[in-house]
Amino acid sequence: MGKYVIGIDFGSLSARAVLVETQTGVLLAQQTEAYPHAVMDRYLPCGKPLGENWALQHPADYLHALHTVVPGVVDSSGVDAGDIVGVALDFTSCTILPVDAGGVPLCFDRKWEEEPHAYVKMWKHHAAQTQADRITALARDRGEPFLARVGGKISSESFLPKVLQILEEAPGVYEATASFLEAADFVTAQLIGGQVVRSSCCAGYKNMWTPESGYPSREFLAALDPRLTGLYTEKVTGPVCRPGTPAGWLSEEAAVWSHLQPGTAVAVAAIDAHVSAPAVGISGPGQLLMIMGTSGCDIICDEEEHVVQGICGVVKDGVLPGYYGYEAGQACLGDHFDWFARNCVPASYQQQAQERGLPVQAILTEKAGRLQPGESGLLALDWWNGNRSVLDNGNLTGLILGMGLTTRPEELYRALIEATAFGKRMILENYERGGVAVREVYACGGICRKNPMLMQIFADVLNREIHVAGVEQAGALGAAMYAACAAGRAQGGWDTIAEAVRAMAPACEVTYRPVEEHAAVYDGLYREFCILHDYFGRGGNPVMQHLRAQKKHP
Amino acid sequence: MGKYVIGIDFGSLSARAVLVETQTGVLLAQQTEAYPHAVMDRYLPCGKPLGENWALQHPADYLHALHTVVPGVVDSSGVDAGDIVGVALDFTSCTILPVDAGGVPLCFDRKWEEEPHAYVKMWKHHAAQTQADRITALARDRGEPFLARVGGKISSESFLPKVLQILEEAPGVYEATASFLEAADFVTAQLIGGQVVRSSCCAGYKNMWTPESGYPSREFLAALDPRLTGLYTEKVTGPVCRPGTPAGWLSEEAAVWSHLQPGTAVAVAAIDAHVSAPAVGISGPGQLLMIMGTSGCDIICDEEEHVVQGICGVVKDGVLPGYYGYEAGQACLGDHFDWFARNCVPASYQQQAQERGLPVQAILTEKAGRLQPGESGLLALDWWNGNRSVLDNGNLTGLILGMGLTTRPEELYRALIEATAFGKRMILENYERGGVAVREVYACGGICRKNPMLMQIFADVLNREIHVAGVEQAGALGAAMYAACAAGRAQGGWDTIAEAVRAMAPACEVTYRPVEEHAAVYDGLYREFCILHDYFGRGGNPVMQHLRAQKKHP
Repeated sequence: MGKYVIGIDFGSLSARAVLVETQTGVLLAQQTEAYPHAVMDRYLPCGKPLGENWALQHPADYLHALHTVVPGVVDSSGVDAGDIVGVALDFTSCTILPVDAGGVPLCFDRKWEEEPHAYVKMWKHHAAQTQADRITALARDRGEPFLARVGGKISSESFLPKVLQILEEAPGVYEATASFLEAADFVTAQLIGGQVVRSSCCAGYKNMWTPESGYPSREFLAALDPRLTGLYTEKVTGPVCRPGTPAGWLSEEAAVWSHLQPGTAVAVAAIDAHVSAPAVGISGPGQLLMIMGTSGCDIICDEEEHVVQGICGVVKDGVLPGYYGYEAGQACLGDHFDWFARNCVPASYQQQAQERGLPVQAILTEKAGRLQPGESGLLALDWWNGNRSVLDNGNLTGLILGMGLTTRPEELYRALIEATAFGKRMILENYERGGVAVREVYACGGICRKNPMLMQIFADVLNREIHVAGVEQAGALGAAMYAACAAGRAQGGWDTIAEAVRAMAPACEVTYRPVEEHAAVYDGLYREFCILHDYFGRGGNPVMQHLRAQKKHP
Repeated sequence: MGKYVIGIDFGSLSARAVLVETQTGVLLAQQTEAYPHAVMDRYLPCGKPLGENWALQHPADYLHALHTVVPGVVDSSGVDAGDIVGVALDFTSCTILPVDAGGVPLCFDRKWEEEPHAYVKMWKHHAAQTQADRITALARDRGEPFLARVGGKISSESFLPKVLQILEEAPGVYEATASFLEAADFVTAQLIGGQVVRSSCCAGYKNMWTPESGYPSREFLAALDPRLTGLYTEKVTGPVCRPGTPAGWLSEEAAVWSHLQPGTAVAVAAIDAHVSAPAVGISGPGQLLMIMGTSGCDIICDEEEHVVQGICGVVKDGVLPGYYGYEAGQACLGDHFDWFARNCVPASYQQQAQERGLPVQAILTEKAGRLQPGESGLLALDWWNGNRSVLDNGNLTGLILGMGLTTRPEELYRALIEATAFGKRMILENYERGGVAVREVYACGGICRKNPMLMQIFADVLNREIHVAGVEQAGALGAAMYAACAAGRAQGGWDTIAEAVRAMAPACEVTYRPVEEHAAVYDGLYREFCILHDYFGRGGNPVMQHLRAQKKHP
């Protein structure tokens, strides 16, 4: 008899569960449920308006989705609940919420329902930038060791700036909060009777935690704001454990609504991007995973801890147990092409798309695919949403040069694709300069199974083979692998993630191989890209920052 | 009784005649006739294909247009031919053709009708670039004084490279040619019985002629190619005279087809751009004329001869008698906006335009007009067709930076407008750096009467008032003023162009005045423009040239 596990991927707009067989990875059922409130970036449900750059969610949506998709896949799979040996979830991060002493979200209390700070702050809540800047400055002044691990700068997306914003703007919420939780840990707690077991993946990448030294010190917090001194000892408590270890076992209460058996192993959660690594077959160091969606995330493991400039973070066991997991990324990847398709494509192309029943990007891709590398004479910088790695500067902006009166839309489109590929190569080379060897390149995410032309350009620009896994929902499958680890081999799961990868990861679907002549042309273009990258990105000409500063005050 | 003159503007695709009253400038009649062969840039009429960058015309088209529009305006005006006291024409230049000893174009001979080099080489025939480069190099080596007057570089559009191309590629044509003529002088000769009187305006700006030293020396020509030694003494003969002086008097033969009286004064011709200056009311030094069409031409007079880097040329009496006339320009002006409208505007905007029965640029202009200076955070370099002045480098290309995911088409459109305005300011400041004072700014050409938003941006960027003349056909009116000068005051015309301007130039239609706050913002943006201009244009980063070189060999 087969044994099965459930992985649940909590994304930005919906949650998706998969039920798979532990020995083969075969998918038996999957189900998706959207969050009723989606992203709240303009108003609270009560109508109260939100500030600029806010992005909240409603924790009830997570519970609704959880209660829908888990019993959904159990029932539709036809599998006996007794053969389902583990459950795990992954989540966007840093996505946090304040809960009371009973573990109940503050926003569930009528008292707080009109208070924005009582809700979930999503990963892309960007309203704590001033707090992040002050934390960075203080950490630099004090020579705090955690700064090097986050590439030299605290992101406004991370845990501490968000909490500091709550303290400063809603001290009553801060006071009433018994615990600040990652949504990943909050939802996991719902499965195991309420205990909070914190994911070392979230804590490491988003909250400056390490197994050796824990969180930032009381002294640092006191210097930041005396009221914060006890944050980590009083409001960020609970064990911090590795994803894939058991967080606990399914409670009687959860068994009722989930249609699972009580006592089923529940794994410690992980971040959505990081959990994709095992899903595509990565089980050791040197295997880079490019997650290619609206933005890009580039994850890799190494045996050693290196100081790499401009990465998002490095965390021991953060991606695979036993290794240092590194994260870097592009703030804009597919978003470039969406922007272009929405804004820069003439009616005649849109008409062609309509007549052939294709999306306009398919027409652009077809036309751009007929061009040779270098043929357009165009070169772009992939900074339409700033630069996350290696410059870590959100105020940088996009650039295209080389236009003439005969320049066509497909040439501009291809230049944008090439620019994101050059940006990717910059990230890979930055890893290697920092001592992190990149031996193989894998890709997952929406784009890489939709656009072979783009993937070939990436292979040519990187001058490396790129392996695309045959998996559509890498996040949910990766979570399922961790669920198998939490169950353990004795229960029909696996003892290590490496075992789970060998058994459950789908075969590589396609490998893109660089074309020698293309790679040579792109080598030359990449050298030009690097010159522009450094000129505009490292202080040679701060025109982008100047223009942006002015933009705010026209 | 009023007296009248006729001015004929020979453009790139058609000729237009106006008949105006000499004492008031009032327009009584106008007529336009297209050239049947238009521009021949792919095939000869016989079907023979042309090379890359060729642009020919058929001289029969000029004669056809001449024979149509002159009697046309005479007849439709109802004016007595005896009261029409002068005729003059302006022409694109350098637009040249080979003629035989009888003054007949070589291409009219069956023997040569399949020979491309026997036809008219238009101003924008760009296939003599290697010849131009060799002439520049030799002139530099020999320290030829004419080089400084053309801004340091011989343009491939000018006279000598075109003739050298004929010699090298079709020596038989060179040999059979009795005279190489500017089309301006060829057509003028048709009115006065065949005598060739060369325009000092064409000879000065396009053939390195000066009243003091004449054409380039025999020694220089011999060093270039021994076969060329006698070019200027044998094949570019005839007096060189100022526009507005009489070239001669209407022949009996021309009187028949033109419906004018024999003996009517016919003026020496001028270049189309230069003749616009008096038409907008310019009669002295320090008054800059911006001719704003698909490309841009910026003409100004000064009492002195200055060496100004990167201009197209300076010619004594070239624009107004008694002054040094300077020419500079932008290789791309309106073409930027046409390119954008054709390639970069989404279907939704094109639909709005259609629904409202407006051209798409009107929609873009409306939306862009609502933006404030600096609001978009964008900055561009106006080099979609290279840079004519002040860098004189056709291999430079366009650039836009500052794009983000919220950047809209109207913002990009406005950035292109601002870029051409910054490029214009660069030309003005370059004149002033070279010692040519710019005291007033006038504008004419299609764009400046069509797009008030654009003109306001130009006024704000230049931080100067811009006077737009109430004249649609500045070229033809300017020619008419020269016709009045050729007739002279005694015949009911004028003795000087200054007199003609006072009497005949229409009043300024509208003056655009800079808005102080806008000018301040644009000052800041212009400083950024200058940094980019010098970085990409003066060798800091030759990426545009590299990309372009590669483009030719993908």
